[in-house]
Amino acid sequence: MQYKITVLAGDGIGPEITKEARKVLRRVAEQEDFSLAFREEHFGGAAIDAVGEPLPEKTLEACKTGDAVLMGSIGGIVGVSPWYKLPVEKRPEAGLLRLRKELGLFCNLRPAKLYSELRAASPLKEEVLGEGFEIMMIRELTGGLYFGEKSLRMEKGEEVARDELIYRAHEIERIAEIAFSLAKEGRGELVSVDKANVLESSRLWRKIFTKYGEDEQDVKLEHVLVDSMAMQLVRNPGKFSVVATENMFGDILSDEMAEITGSLGMLPSASLGENAFGLYEPSGGSAPDIAGRNIANPIAAILSAAMLLRYSLKEKEAAKKIERAVEKVLAKGYRTKDIFPKRDAEGLKLLSCSEMGDAVCAEL
Amino acid sequence: MQYKITVLAGDGIGPEITKEARKVLRRVAEQEDFSLAFREEHFGGAAIDAVGEPLPEKTLEACKTGDAVLMGSIGGIVGVSPWYKLPVEKRPEAGLLRLRKELGLFCNLRPAKLYSELRAASPLKEEVLGEGFEIMMIRELTGGLYFGEKSLRMEKGEEVARDELIYRAHEIERIAEIAFSLAKEGRGELVSVDKANVLESSRLWRKIFTKYGEDEQDVKLEHVLVDSMAMQLVRNPGKFSVVATENMFGDILSDEMAEITGSLGMLPSASLGENAFGLYEPSGGSAPDIAGRNIANPIAAILSAAMLLRYSLKEKEAAKKIERAVEKVLAKGYRTKDIFPKRDAEGLKLLSCSEMGDAVCAEL
Ligand SMILES: CC(C)[C@H](C(=O)O)[C@@H](O)C(=O)O
Ligand SMILES: CC(C)[C@H](C(=O)O)[C@@H](O)C(=O)O
Repeated sequence: MQYKITVLAGDGIGPEITKEARKVLRRVAEQEDFSLAFREEHFGGAAIDAVGEPLPEKTLEACKTGDAVLMGSIGGIVGVSPWYKLPVEKRPEAGLLRLRKELGLFCNLRPAKLYSELRAASPLKEEVLGEGFEIMMIRELTGGLYFGEKSLRMEKGEEVARDELIYRAHEIERIAEIAFSLAKEGRGELVSVDKANVLESSRLWRKIFTKYGEDEQDVKLEHVLVDSMAMQLVRNPGKFSVVATENMFGDILSDEMAEITGSLGMLPSASLGENAFGLYEPSGGSAPDIAGRNIANPIAAILSAAMLLRYSLKEKEAAKKIERAVEKVLAKGYRTKDIFPKRDAEGLKLLSCSEMGDAVCAEL
Repeated sequence: MQYKITVLAGDGIGPEITKEARKVLRRVAEQEDFSLAFREEHFGGAAIDAVGEPLPEKTLEACKTGDAVLMGSIGGIVGVSPWYKLPVEKRPEAGLLRLRKELGLFCNLRPAKLYSELRAASPLKEEVLGEGFEIMMIRELTGGLYFGEKSLRMEKGEEVARDELIYRAHEIERIAEIAFSLAKEGRGELVSVDKANVLESSRLWRKIFTKYGEDEQDVKLEHVLVDSMAMQLVRNPGKFSVVATENMFGDILSDEMAEITGSLGMLPSASLGENAFGLYEPSGGSAPDIAGRNIANPIAAILSAAMLLRYSLKEKEAAKKIERAVEKVLAKGYRTKDIFPKRDAEGLKLLSCSEMGDAVCAEL
């Protein structure tokens, strides 16, 4: 088998971390029975600089003709980077939103795992962390407020801004399907987050999840309001295993979730479309402040590559191999700067970005 | 001066905690130069039980003719309480939403303070708490997704749900005005939270806050995206003093903020309208599981009464007196069950709800 991977390195630390992810992918492909053809394209701020727009047609075409997309990260610092002098629809982030829509990436998977070696980095108290947590957040990604109609008009002498939150039944159903199937593979528990006491779209969301729940007797479904979820996540994260929600709530909650692990540089993400197509990227941002210094943590990108193998290429053994290699590297005490503790660092070894990529390869 | 206070005790622990708040108000009125006339009305689930609807006309009229409203809490347990068999617009929460709109309560103030005596109850690590925090959250309360048009329709054979997020310039301006003035009274810092990279309404929000910021040179204004805010709150709460945001983001973030104090039973709130009118209620819920047992923490209700004195009656000295009394009671080691620690309880004394009310009165 030969697979075609489109690489969108993007901005900030994007190029250096995707380089390590490619290194790991290449190594694992050598060992297993498949080969990978990488094709690099411009994206985000780098594409604005190169050709004047964040998502050039050539980039989009490359993504569409490949089997999966490996992305780095995009964006710079608002007020510093010249990209933010452009109108909002020409900025790096607009390119990402358009890419999600054009590629039909409707389902965002964002695992938030507390690594036992990195508990000290979590902002939560030891007793709150308890046995730890590993939450799979499923966020709807091409609907809701993000893609509804928007307008800014003058009405009775004042500006009036509108955003539409719209959900069609099938957009919710396809998320419910994935959510229930992931819950079944896991602890058999699913939390659906909404604001059904206020929003019509949430009531439709809840109705559809409830209906699926009736057919899926082996999954325990719980509905939690979004405000309550924001609380429970910091009070008792271990309670959750699989969590599903709509686009905007998912944006907020998945970041809260990521932060409580204390190690954003470890967290991958997958954005899935139809027919196993997907885009894979670290959960964290482009970190312009440390870009180009070979000190970024490539593990989020490496684990994103593992998700790419699992969900798009169906190379599950190769995916597991990478994940196990990451665990071993951590267990051996290897750390990049972001996860190197300020105290109690005996036995730990500080690695650069590329050294961390090498270390993961060595464990494969 | 005689002021008219409408009391909406509501459900769960509402009656017992508002009773203590009234006790404290009565005592402080005796000491200062004003008197208070209380009028109790049905509200929430209790009103459904009594007269069949969560916000009876008589209740609404009583609120409109008084100087301020002191509320307890509303609602029961979904799936347990019979109120949740009713259609959504007849439930206790619908009564609260309608009350906010009818009384024009456009500005919600939710202080989230970490009491030094209660640091152990926070889910955040000691080093994250640092010097502590005291954040004033200003949430727009009668606009946005909560009150836009809603619909559920069949389109091309499937259900389609819509909610409208709408903001008119003046709705944002009046929040900016309050936010900047509170920032000036405090550290001179204001964080405005939005999602301007995605929402038209957020871009209008940001434009208006920016314009106010240009005229208010002594306030340092920072714009933070809502997803980033959800992270920063758990990473570095001490960074924030005054935070303003729209209705739905405020719902989520104010609950996250409340949770990281670790002592929801201590947190009051104010919902302000025009001409100093306001409704005051604890930030926490109705806690049906402990209702009627005289073990709830009345301090959130007592501090809500202090906010009522400050913002509606302009009795600032009386308000401060109550707040100082609460500080003293804590310093003396008096605790209700919710803030009584599991460990290191030497020197602390467990009080019932009514004993706590008495203890606060004794310090006035
Ligand atoms: C960059 C931004 C538009 C994006 C979003 O809001 O979806 C980001 O926050 C994310 O979560 O991927
Ligand atoms: C009860 C509910 C409708 C309400 C809201 O969402 O505003 C509550 O969560 C609050 O924050 O006061």
